[in-house]
Amino acid sequence: MTSLEWLRGRDVLGTAGLDRENLDALFASARRMRSIVKDRGGTDLLRGRVLANLFYEPSTRTSSCFVASMTRLGGSVIPISEVRYSSVSKGESLRDTVRTLEAYADVIVLRHPEEGAAKIAADAAKKPIINAGDGPGEHPTQALLDLFTIREELGRLDGLTVTLLGDLKHGRTVHSLAKLLALYGGRVRYVSPEAVRMPDPLVAELRGRGLAQSEHRSLDEVVADTDVLYVTRVQKERFASEDEYAKAQGSYRVDLATVARMKEKSCIMHPLPRVGEIDEAVDDDRRAAYFRQVENGMYVRMALLAAVLGSPA
Amino acid sequence: MTSLEWLRGRDVLGTAGLDRENLDALFASARRMRSIVKDRGGTDLLRGRVLANLFYEPSTRTSSCFVASMTRLGGSVIPISEVRYSSVSKGESLRDTVRTLEAYADVIVLRHPEEGAAKIAADAAKKPIINAGDGPGEHPTQALLDLFTIREELGRLDGLTVTLLGDLKHGRTVHSLAKLLALYGGRVRYVSPEAVRMPDPLVAELRGRGLAQSEHRSLDEVVADTDVLYVTRVQKERFASEDEYAKAQGSYRVDLATVARMKEKSCIMHPLPRVGEIDEAVDDDRRAAYFRQVENGMYVRMALLAAVLGSPA
Amino acid sequence: MTSLEWLRGRDVLGTAGLDRENLDALFASARRMRSIVKDRGGTDLLRGRVLANLFYEPSTRTSSCFVASMTRLGGSVIPISEVRYSSVSKGESLRDTVRTLEAYADVIVLRHPEEGAAKIAADAAKKPIINAGDGPGEHPTQALLDLFTIREELGRLDGLTVTLLGDLKHGRTVHSLAKLLALYGGRVRYVSPEAVRMPDPLVAELRGRGLAQSEHRSLDEVVADTDVLYVTRVQKERFASEDEYAKAQGSYRVDLATVARMKEKSCIMHPLPRVGEIDEAVDDDRRAAYFRQVENGMYVRMALLAAVLGSPA
Repeated sequence: MTSLEWLRGRDVLGTAGLDRENLDALFASARRMRSIVKDRGGTDLLRGRVLANLFYEPSTRTSSCFVASMTRLGGSVIPISEVRYSSVSKGESLRDTVRTLEAYADVIVLRHPEEGAAKIAADAAKKPIINAGDGPGEHPTQALLDLFTIREELGRLDGLTVTLLGDLKHGRTVHSLAKLLALYGGRVRYVSPEAVRMPDPLVAELRGRGLAQSEHRSLDEVVADTDVLYVTRVQKERFASEDEYAKAQGSYRVDLATVARMKEKSCIMHPLPRVGEIDEAVDDDRRAAYFRQVENGMYVRMALLAAVLGSPA
Repeated sequence: MTSLEWLRGRDVLGTAGLDRENLDALFASARRMRSIVKDRGGTDLLRGRVLANLFYEPSTRTSSCFVASMTRLGGSVIPISEVRYSSVSKGESLRDTVRTLEAYADVIVLRHPEEGAAKIAADAAKKPIINAGDGPGEHPTQALLDLFTIREELGRLDGLTVTLLGDLKHGRTVHSLAKLLALYGGRVRYVSPEAVRMPDPLVAELRGRGLAQSEHRSLDEVVADTDVLYVTRVQKERFASEDEYAKAQGSYRVDLATVARMKEKSCIMHPLPRVGEIDEAVDDDRRAAYFRQVENGMYVRMALLAAVLGSPA
Repeated sequence: MTSLEWLRGRDVLGTAGLDRENLDALFASARRMRSIVKDRGGTDLLRGRVLANLFYEPSTRTSSCFVASMTRLGGSVIPISEVRYSSVSKGESLRDTVRTLEAYADVIVLRHPEEGAAKIAADAAKKPIINAGDGPGEHPTQALLDLFTIREELGRLDGLTVTLLGDLKHGRTVHSLAKLLALYGGRVRYVSPEAVRMPDPLVAELRGRGLAQSEHRSLDEVVADTDVLYVTRVQKERFASEDEYAKAQGSYRVDLATVARMKEKSCIMHPLPRVGEIDEAVDDDRRAAYFRQVENGMYVRMALLAAVLGSPA
């Protein structure tokens, strides 16, 4: 068993630098967390420890997941989601807010609309910062739970064909996932509206990491030999007009007809929330993995929190 | 002692189907919860369990009560009260929100402005849903705490004379209570402004259940032999004009003169918040039961949560 | 060791009536809390106890601190920070809100924009109320953590020279601190813009308590023999024009040049948030005590909560 000692006291700002051994150790811990939750709900590993859940923009899913993760580990949470009304509006800097909260808490989870915010916070704080999304920047815990889900759904990570569908320009989720997938070979296929294609510099970077990539105009071209179909929202505000949005949304919608063409052993993922990209009728298909993906988020974050606070399971 | 096993894993959407035996068992458990709280503050019955407290509209009293109930049982709470700003505003459906939260939590408490929301949530979720009010629909935990309070204040539930005063049209509280009272015989008297009378279909339904009912223009007619005076708010927005509101409000106000005409052994209840329906001078009278009613809410909800999660006291 | 028994079940509304013996006992307990947190994160002293954290105006720092303090003591918290949207907007009085919350909780922490609110709450409630700031009124836990910080930074409280800098008119923080300092002799020096001088009646009152006071136009006059430099925000809205504000702010800014003139053994404090009164470059100087001051807030509040709930450390 590989140790998680390397995470003790560490900031989790992005996924750069993670290797397969690190990820194996983390995923093994996430599996142990799942057993703990299934068997007895939670543990006392982090009893007496406090997490500050600092959300500068709302994200029910992510903030709820961290609350559940921390409290199932026996710790407690300071929820700070009304930052718009509070110290911040008195002009306090992110640095001061973080230095204040680390006086009360043992770890800070930060969600912020601006890229680089997590790094600023980490530089200011002595205690560990976990980046829960900084605008177009990174969202490492999402990338980790995505990868863990693929591993649990398909039993392996090597040599998979992964199709990324939807808004590939703004989706930090798919960017981080693609970088992690580069560690495991395989092929990544991009299917997106013209306006929101995978950015060229990132494609070049991933090529440098040895990731096989191809771009496709239609899901039809690739659906049949896809192992993982990763769907993202195409946000209305990215389009010039309501018309263009409706057209794009229609072209990238996954329904039962799509699923019927997928392999028996494959899976459909989505970071949620969805707004119509996946028909609800698909939910009952066993390949629909997105709600298991949500649940995996808790096990991965439990593993991370416990390791960062020096009490890994 | 009747078992609470029937509640294990069950949704609590309304009060239909509850019988006297069920209620006896629940109330006995609520009494044990009261002893636990008085003796030592709380228990570890729900250690490691998580409640998602999902409020689509604000309700300090109800949400606070569930937080206190869950944490006194040793569990923890994911508070989600800013839903207006969060996933929902990204267009996520109630179904998806509930299926997401059940990945993190063991039980979901839902408050929603639309009737039927709790049923939709329960159909989507595998984990238990507790309806904490769905618009003009039901609010079963309020009905249960109301009935429990009557039982504790007067020592019995059979054959009582209960006067319902105020807005009887929109008040789901009094509707649910009337249905439960039908299990215990006795008489129910309605005193309300013309604009907000008890709805005819409900009166007919209650007649079918064998409840003795009568309608009165004035509290004076019935106050002297009332065992339970249940007062509700008459909301300003129900009236055509400010004038009509002021007139109605004045006619249905309970003050010391009202109380002086009540039986020695009787009680005054109110679901709170009040806005003048009961004079604060009444608070010191021993028949003023509304703050004990609030407290009983915690014992009843503790009993329900523990039973639904399979660890009844 | 002096007992903290006098705090059991008591409201903490202000600092009047506290004597040196009381403060010694409280500070000794705060030191024990610090050891507990450093050694093992928290305790179970308040297991099963519930705090209602009732904030009628936002204050991330203070509310977060009470959450951390209560949960590190093993208790739990009902967070109520969205009061603007809730019962209050249905017209409920502070009295009723408090009487409701004490049905669920063992202690209520109240932040309110209006002076006297804490007293109203305490009169209504049977359970203890801790005033976390009532407008221009008192903020006793801030005053206590300030005094504790001076004691810990300098090793003593007697005979110190304390310079209060900034807005001395509206700052309840400096008012409360000055009153406590009167118990320990020494000298207090006021440096403020003309528009926000220390109020004359308060100066007179403090003179009556035997406090040596002097007023100065410039920090330069007093910085060299200051033991404690206590800086507060000068709020923009207190000034007639943007110009006057900029001028005042510039004159009362602490930077490395200021610090260079201070004694080796001295300290700089600030209740935070700051908006430029102290240059960030000062943060690394060992005399910059304001983040240790934040942390001390947790130990002092832990000591207070435990004592008020009858389980002092």
